[in-house]
Amino acid sequence: MKEELPKAMRAIQTPLGKCKIYFGAGILSKIGALDCIRSTRAAGIVFDSNTKRLFARKIKLSKNTRACDFAFPAGETNKNLETAGRILEFFASSGLDRSSVVVAVGGGVTTDLGGFVASVFMRGISWIAVPTTLLGMVDAAIGGKTGVDLTSGKNLAGTFHPPRAVVIDPDALQTLGRRDRAGGIAEMIKIALACDAKLYNKLYKSRGEWLTCNPRKLEPLIRAAIHAKARLVELDERDTGARLALNLGHTTGHALEAATNYKYFHHGEAVAIGLRVAMDLASALGMLAPATRERTIQLLRDCGLPIAIPRKLTNARILAAMRFDKKSSGGRIRFILPVDGHATRAEFIDKTGIVLALDAARER
Amino acid sequence: MKEELPKAMRAIQTPLGKCKIYFGAGILSKIGALDCIRSTRAAGIVFDSNTKRLFARKIKLSKNTRACDFAFPAGETNKNLETAGRILEFFASSGLDRSSVVVAVGGGVTTDLGGFVASVFMRGISWIAVPTTLLGMVDAAIGGKTGVDLTSGKNLAGTFHPPRAVVIDPDALQTLGRRDRAGGIAEMIKIALACDAKLYNKLYKSRGEWLTCNPRKLEPLIRAAIHAKARLVELDERDTGARLALNLGHTTGHALEAATNYKYFHHGEAVAIGLRVAMDLASALGMLAPATRERTIQLLRDCGLPIAIPRKLTNARILAAMRFDKKSSGGRIRFILPVDGHATRAEFIDKTGIVLALDAARER
Repeated sequence: MKEELPKAMRAIQTPLGKCKIYFGAGILSKIGALDCIRSTRAAGIVFDSNTKRLFARKIKLSKNTRACDFAFPAGETNKNLETAGRILEFFASSGLDRSSVVVAVGGGVTTDLGGFVASVFMRGISWIAVPTTLLGMVDAAIGGKTGVDLTSGKNLAGTFHPPRAVVIDPDALQTLGRRDRAGGIAEMIKIALACDAKLYNKLYKSRGEWLTCNPRKLEPLIRAAIHAKARLVELDERDTGARLALNLGHTTGHALEAATNYKYFHHGEAVAIGLRVAMDLASALGMLAPATRERTIQLLRDCGLPIAIPRKLTNARILAAMRFDKKSSGGRIRFILPVDGHATRAEFIDKTGIVLALDAARER
Repeated sequence: MKEELPKAMRAIQTPLGKCKIYFGAGILSKIGALDCIRSTRAAGIVFDSNTKRLFARKIKLSKNTRACDFAFPAGETNKNLETAGRILEFFASSGLDRSSVVVAVGGGVTTDLGGFVASVFMRGISWIAVPTTLLGMVDAAIGGKTGVDLTSGKNLAGTFHPPRAVVIDPDALQTLGRRDRAGGIAEMIKIALACDAKLYNKLYKSRGEWLTCNPRKLEPLIRAAIHAKARLVELDERDTGARLALNLGHTTGHALEAATNYKYFHHGEAVAIGLRVAMDLASALGMLAPATRERTIQLLRDCGLPIAIPRKLTNARILAAMRFDKKSSGGRIRFILPVDGHATRAEFIDKTGIVLALDAARER
């Protein structure tokens, strides 16, 4: 008997034709009704230790689908090849095959890792992203990038392997702590600054409330951020043109995370500081009006995000980490800079300019 | 100054448009002149411990290209995620970036592993396959499959990531031992049986000499095998239809290797026994004339290949390993069977039939 797909579970319209995005309160329990999983004999479900505890009981598959759960210890430090290897061995020994589906339930770490495992298991099987953090919903799970970190830097190993579906249940946000929510808002500010003036204005107007409001209030923002990102991904899936704009704030952000061994910052916090550095660079080059810079710094601050590089982190360490950024080429460090009107451009910057901007970003 | 591509280095015509195949004695030293590597600032060169010793000095890049060599200990047991991780970390810390190129120099193990690393480093960079064994030249390096083994089975993690070029220098065959040469001939016999009656007849006619002849005599066979494989790959890059024919002999072959921890058989030897099992199954089903089976067994034997399963390997162990084959689905074991006229078909076989064939394949 074919189970009817609940109304809340209809895909929302995005420019991402190949990947359907489902959005609705309570839809976690309806995943088994999705076309791409209903007839699967076995599904490999990837949790981290937190999301296993919070959501494992809510994920319901059809009676015909055997669920093989794997939970890895939560945290960016576990988003590596070793964890990927353990999951792959588990899937193989559990009898998953080419017709199986991976379901990754968690924040960006889990969907990046689960997507990566799906992309290489038996040379690639289908997967479903179930982001449970704000950052995952608006950014990490949208667009098909998967990855694990290497010692030298973040996401240095990975693939492009879009999920068949992204399932977003805003009720999951009830479980988020303050830092996790702020981190998600940082990525929304990035998307807004990069390509969506309307979203930017919405975020700015009510900037005092995003950190503490009922998660339901965030829903229109999440949808807007997904649409903005999906538009860029559709233009440039392989990240060589328009999509690069979404790396705004990430040259510094990734370097801050790497230089602190992924133990100090939440990803969104590092991105917030990275946005500030990018704005400083853009202002110095006359590409960004000082007023936009001021407004955005205020917005970041009012959303509970850091905007200053901690004193104990030296420029030398940050610059060394920047060299391993995927955007660098031939030893030159590349930044995405905000241009007024909220477009962005990639630019090469000489080291002196970067050092000046890093110094400036130590002021609170 | 643009270095002229030597005449010997012109791509041979194959149906694989995206991937150019260069073939010629002595062309190893001309790799630096290839379009896809000439202007690269840094290349990551993957050797195994044997090919590093034999070929590292012969590989010459242009003066502008920095070469970062990595050699892993030779052997199928090292074709795993751990070795892949070590190479990835080395490439990242050596400053390779998205514009870098990977060059994999060696047998199937090296090109599978090097291609896999290229496919996930910074979400995929270009690579060049330089097969130095007969098996690599006619099979492993052609067609874009990359992979590493998991504990449960062979090539269970991997990607489809065709090299930009395959560079074949038949002089490399001078370095091959008897077992390695025989292993390559096994894959040629497989290709011939699967889809090329003309190649089959050539192999059969001079079957006594392939093992000991001057490697130059093998060149027309190598070209023919590449063409036959390239035709199937072009029809079906993702291995869901026509290309499956090339898995002939591999359900049993991979299982024999896994059941012996990749330490007893050369890949081609396991495939030779696998071809025999597939022929026994096909004969039992009336799909293959007994005469073809006899002729092929004689051909395998005359090329120095094993055709019997060693006594100490029980059917139970082989069947257990077969279950992890990528072609299995829903617990059913899948074989590719030769049909007379040298076409092939995929079939599900019940366990009783498999056991009978395994028992038969213990006779010499």
